[in-house]
Amino acid sequence: MKTRIGIVGYGNLGRGAELAVREAGDMELAAVFTRRSPENVSILTPDVPILSVDELKNWTDKIDVLILCGGSATDLPVQTPKYAKLFNVIDSFDTHAKIPEHFAHVDAAAKEGGHVAMISVGWDPGLFSLNRVYANAILPDGKDYTFWGKGVSQGHSDAVRRIKGVKNAKQYTIPMEKALDSVRNGENPDLTTREKHLRECFVVLEDGADAARVEQEIKTMPNYFADYDTIVHFISEEELLREHGGIAHGGFVFRSGRTGKDKENNHIIEYSLKLDSNPEFTTSVLIAYARAVKRMADEGQTGCKTVLDVPPAYLCEQSGDELRARFL
Amino acid sequence: MKTRIGIVGYGNLGRGAELAVREAGDMELAAVFTRRSPENVSILTPDVPILSVDELKNWTDKIDVLILCGGSATDLPVQTPKYAKLFNVIDSFDTHAKIPEHFAHVDAAAKEGGHVAMISVGWDPGLFSLNRVYANAILPDGKDYTFWGKGVSQGHSDAVRRIKGVKNAKQYTIPMEKALDSVRNGENPDLTTREKHLRECFVVLEDGADAARVEQEIKTMPNYFADYDTIVHFISEEELLREHGGIAHGGFVFRSGRTGKDKENNHIIEYSLKLDSNPEFTTSVLIAYARAVKRMADEGQTGCKTVLDVPPAYLCEQSGDELRARFL
Repeated sequence: MKTRIGIVGYGNLGRGAELAVREAGDMELAAVFTRRSPENVSILTPDVPILSVDELKNWTDKIDVLILCGGSATDLPVQTPKYAKLFNVIDSFDTHAKIPEHFAHVDAAAKEGGHVAMISVGWDPGLFSLNRVYANAILPDGKDYTFWGKGVSQGHSDAVRRIKGVKNAKQYTIPMEKALDSVRNGENPDLTTREKHLRECFVVLEDGADAARVEQEIKTMPNYFADYDTIVHFISEEELLREHGGIAHGGFVFRSGRTGKDKENNHIIEYSLKLDSNPEFTTSVLIAYARAVKRMADEGQTGCKTVLDVPPAYLCEQSGDELRARFL
Repeated sequence: MKTRIGIVGYGNLGRGAELAVREAGDMELAAVFTRRSPENVSILTPDVPILSVDELKNWTDKIDVLILCGGSATDLPVQTPKYAKLFNVIDSFDTHAKIPEHFAHVDAAAKEGGHVAMISVGWDPGLFSLNRVYANAILPDGKDYTFWGKGVSQGHSDAVRRIKGVKNAKQYTIPMEKALDSVRNGENPDLTTREKHLRECFVVLEDGADAARVEQEIKTMPNYFADYDTIVHFISEEELLREHGGIAHGGFVFRSGRTGKDKENNHIIEYSLKLDSNPEFTTSVLIAYARAVKRMADEGQTGCKTVLDVPPAYLCEQSGDELRARFL
């Protein structure tokens, strides 16, 4: 029997989850739940009910894993504990500093409900976290580096848009090649914020706005830009919509560590992602881990889990024999 | 109480394992076992007994995990099943095609003995396998690429040394930059053997040997060189020993996969290693997984395991709370 997937929330992540379920031979989409009026939502998969989230309580025996596609700021802190009482769930909670708190709330709820609830699944947190853990376990004496980009930072784009005279804007976070090369060369550099990432802004001005003032306000904005080198381009709204509508992202995780009698040998572990669609890749990770959630629940496990708790084989449709023969 | 580690075999891998145990705050080296005369073996760690492998049967209650540091051709197929009856063990068996057979033998022995036996731990098989599995689970529609090097291939160096007139030789396997770039750019190329790797040989001739004939014999050798572009340098033995004694290695694992309604989005996952010392890095991986072996054995698990069966958190000294706060 196929694993029955429910999706809560049908934005970029919900659509990505729907596409990823299609690729999984062992899963089927059971229903999509929305806070909007269901009649205003249309999905890609035929013959799948679109329902109000109020209906969720009636679906507890018809869904194996619920994919929570809300945002980390306000949705998931409420939704994940709430639904972990009723379902096996998985989320992509990505506010790094609040993960321990979220874990505690979700763990209590999932144990109360007797379910498995997996949090913070995606690429960072998620695959990048995995790579940090593997690399630290293998090279205990070393240094970690994480770089993000090239990709759009929603937070920085919003910050630019809040400046008076700005009509629209996109901000790219770009890792510095020089810093990447230094890490790759085993130089174990101490890097300042400015040395790690460049910020590039594409800005559409309101009619009559003062470009020089806007550029100055961007470049000196505390926290967001002041500690970085920032490039500002003024472009037309048409060009912004045509050239900068992408949702590509990516990044790099390194560990550089030493071994040897006199620590004479250096080793570099590098992991990188180059993603055309951040939400579609994130939900591809979510769906692979949904398979693990089902398996852990079937084993009788309960409580909150993260990617650090999951044997890699649990992400796969194939048997252990097949995996060893093909991938080991 | 610290996990008590035994090392069987004190060559490059055995020495690497000894160094890696030193870095582990939760482990101690209990004894080193050798097939040589123990009085002819000296190790780095003071006050640790060096014993004949014949003594192993008397150490079953004094060792938690035995690290098997033999070779894959003849040692491990015998040693791993033999010692899995008596101990929790871990090996770096790396003959990919024979892993299913090795797994079956070791699994039966480990279950008979009530122990955990982990096989094929290192970087390939090992970390590269992990990355292939994660990436395939996340991007089911895609292509895999593995490149090795730059590093010395022992098998190819041996093949050159067997040619008449060759006194000594080292062969480097070098990944082709053009192929790496094509994969990184998402071109999903179909690559021939020649397009993936270059072979570079440093050869010391016997007095009076015919360099042109030796070069021709190398470049046309079936299986080893005929399908590759090969560069041959003739150098003095002094230069070979001075410049080409290194044990560096490395490689790259990629998966390039598509998502989207019309498969319009491409994603590249890249994992790479650049290692100054192949044996020291391999044993660093072994020791991290020895921690997992102990934990799985303490849970009552038995039988043969691979890296695909191990939750990443099991590789770490830190608690789940610490790992989530620091790495997730």
